[in-house]
Amino acid sequence: MPAASADLASSIHSGDFAAVQNALLHLRPPEAAEAVATLPPADQAAAFRILPHRAAARVFEYLPPPDQKALTDALGRRDSAAVLNLVADDDRNRFLQELPEQETTEILALLTPEERAEATALLKYPPGVVGRLMTPHYVAVRENQTVGQVLDYVREHGKDSETLNVIYVIDEQGVLVDDIRIRELLVVALETKMSKLMDRRYVILHTMDRQEDALDLFRREDRSALPVVDDGGCIVGIVTVDDVLDVATETATREMQKFGGSETLDEPYMQVTLAHMIRKRAGWLIVLFLGEMLTATAMGFFEKEIARAVVLALFVPLIISSGGNSGSQGSTLVIRALAVGEVKLRDFWRVIRREVLVGLALGVILGAIGFLRISLWSAFSDIYGPHWLMVATTVAFALVGVVLWGTLVGCGLPFILRRLGFDPATSSAPFVATLVDVTGLIIYFSVGLVVLRGSVL
Amino acid sequence: MPAASADLASSIHSGDFAAVQNALLHLRPPEAAEAVATLPPADQAAAFRILPHRAAARVFEYLPPPDQKALTDALGRRDSAAVLNLVADDDRNRFLQELPEQETTEILALLTPEERAEATALLKYPPGVVGRLMTPHYVAVRENQTVGQVLDYVREHGKDSETLNVIYVIDEQGVLVDDIRIRELLVVALETKMSKLMDRRYVILHTMDRQEDALDLFRREDRSALPVVDDGGCIVGIVTVDDVLDVATETATREMQKFGGSETLDEPYMQVTLAHMIRKRAGWLIVLFLGEMLTATAMGFFEKEIARAVVLALFVPLIISSGGNSGSQGSTLVIRALAVGEVKLRDFWRVIRREVLVGLALGVILGAIGFLRISLWSAFSDIYGPHWLMVATTVAFALVGVVLWGTLVGCGLPFILRRLGFDPATSSAPFVATLVDVTGLIIYFSVGLVVLRGSVL
Repeated sequence: MPAASADLASSIHSGDFAAVQNALLHLRPPEAAEAVATLPPADQAAAFRILPHRAAARVFEYLPPPDQKALTDALGRRDSAAVLNLVADDDRNRFLQELPEQETTEILALLTPEERAEATALLKYPPGVVGRLMTPHYVAVRENQTVGQVLDYVREHGKDSETLNVIYVIDEQGVLVDDIRIRELLVVALETKMSKLMDRRYVILHTMDRQEDALDLFRREDRSALPVVDDGGCIVGIVTVDDVLDVATETATREMQKFGGSETLDEPYMQVTLAHMIRKRAGWLIVLFLGEMLTATAMGFFEKEIARAVVLALFVPLIISSGGNSGSQGSTLVIRALAVGEVKLRDFWRVIRREVLVGLALGVILGAIGFLRISLWSAFSDIYGPHWLMVATTVAFALVGVVLWGTLVGCGLPFILRRLGFDPATSSAPFVATLVDVTGLIIYFSVGLVVLRGSVL
Repeated sequence: MPAASADLASSIHSGDFAAVQNALLHLRPPEAAEAVATLPPADQAAAFRILPHRAAARVFEYLPPPDQKALTDALGRRDSAAVLNLVADDDRNRFLQELPEQETTEILALLTPEERAEATALLKYPPGVVGRLMTPHYVAVRENQTVGQVLDYVREHGKDSETLNVIYVIDEQGVLVDDIRIRELLVVALETKMSKLMDRRYVILHTMDRQEDALDLFRREDRSALPVVDDGGCIVGIVTVDDVLDVATETATREMQKFGGSETLDEPYMQVTLAHMIRKRAGWLIVLFLGEMLTATAMGFFEKEIARAVVLALFVPLIISSGGNSGSQGSTLVIRALAVGEVKLRDFWRVIRREVLVGLALGVILGAIGFLRISLWSAFSDIYGPHWLMVATTVAFALVGVVLWGTLVGCGLPFILRRLGFDPATSSAPFVATLVDVTGLIIYFSVGLVVLRGSVL
């Protein structure tokens, strides 16, 4: 593909627009979109202006959202609207809902009345609900029709349907009464009545369902499309699995952002304004900072000991980071295992039993390395003073305790959060590290007090 | 659903197996699977034994992998094989490939010769490639056939096809020459030749393609199924989007685990043996630990300063954790933005320019809070000594530097890793924190040297 886009860029620069048009029309839309996406925004606009509007619309549907935005900015409102008139309505909606309200209104005004009505109908739903994802293009028939009649109807009206995998059966009031896979129609005689094929068992989404719940339903049901009904049970649209695949990506993004200790950005990274970005990130950082202040308080309790054995202070970062690392490792594993259902709430004690052993083993490994390191350095220098053996012992035992503690907190916290009704992903790496830091210090200095009492302290 | 499973459990315990069978047969398979999944393993087996094998197979297909494993263990080889004979082959394969080789061989031996041949054919592909995902159930026709003939063929042979959304056209040698959406067949006259509908533009997967690449292709192409060809271009199977949705989940799991600073487990959390779990987790922890040892070395350089101003040591955890937190926040945002294409390699300098401002702002905010905290405490106690104002100044300036540095490292590292050909997700939260800790200490004590020289130091 890089070759194709290099050719494209050089054709644009040399003004050979026939070559550009020819190249783009020869690629399938997803390929053309990929080639266009590698061009700088100004060239993207140039490439789009050459394409017939219908072809441009197909390519537009496959561009990544940030490129769609940059492209419409470069194209200007009028050209954008000409293309957007022809973009499939679920794709257009996904694009429009990312824009600031002002821009959405301006672009809506430039659409044809028919397309505008469709777009406005879907945009009236709040962001994040199924209503925003759906398309009104599906095939619905009545139960007293024959398979032959239905297939004739599909032949005439199916061209615009987003999927023909499933046909929806409705009653006189438009209420959904069944969904039937087209394969079932194709493998029976033409004069079969639809009612013969019906089992009246079907899965539905509601317009106001959360998109994440729709994703879960698609995962569970292995469907390529699901019908959406309003409060009265009337079918108002369908959601197709390709749109849900996008929801899956966005959900994973939010989960990752949360895990990294940031509020979710809700907008592509490059489009978030600086002020918004700082606000979103400062929140959690301040909370964590206030939590970390307790480390200063904890250290304050041991100020006298530190003054007498400065060598203890040298290992503070090593000790607390080991606790933080083992904690964030454990919490990732458990958060994810809970999210995909490998582990359930009732497994709490089984997980804790396992993690006591894992944490002990990891602590002993790190403790042994720490002990070795201090002993080795002390063999060749006087850096840790005459009591180096006791210092090494303190560090080693503290590591066992801190790593075990970090592991247990990291693995246990997601369960507790889930139990209390919070999202387990809130126990992010930074959050766990902060919790473990304060207790880690107390463990370290307490071990130090026991081991060094009478000698250094 | 909890109500349904509670009823189920009580029916099983009271020995009312007719009620159990009735309840399960009345639910759709995904619902039945969900109800069954909430039961303890022994009850799951009891529920399965009552079901007709065909119904049991449908329910089995929708169970989460860990439950599938527990269930076959509880059912025993023979009963498991009876059910597995009837499970759809892509679902069965996904299950079989998770088992230890010994168990796979034993179960394969109990399948019917026909099913065994199918399962073995797919299992011969290495794990993680498209060959393992595909199903041989699809509809392929010749280009000289008419639409009417094709629909008749589908009517006769389409029952087992995994999807009827797309029909594949092959030549005499079985080489794929086009894919045609069934909707195109349904909206033209029956006597139309297939060749009339063909554009010879199609997307294919190869048996040896990586499953992650298949996922990317599905995302880009918005398809519900893609054909799989062998080295000669002959179609050997299809992959459907529902199987790819599972790949998406597994990929996100691996990404999360990597980000949490652990090697990927490759098996469900509860099934990994303790020894394996410790080995997988110890690796990264040891690497990070060895890196963190540099903090002890760095602190060693400032041992004399710490001895003279112990108060400096009290804020070490606060300073380094602030750097680590801002770094892990930045790296998550950038890793994810790179992964979904919101940010590209060429945006490096734009991101860095943004992050200099964001990092400065965040640093100033935390620095101000830190300054305030030390000043307030010092107003009411003598904890930070007579030079508290200089200590507060040191901490505040150090925070600005450390947070800015953490932010830049966190945001820049994923770019550098990607540039060097590594996975950006390797710059996990613990990895960034470790990198930032050592430099953070140097920044902190250097600021301290400048501010406190002549007074405390």
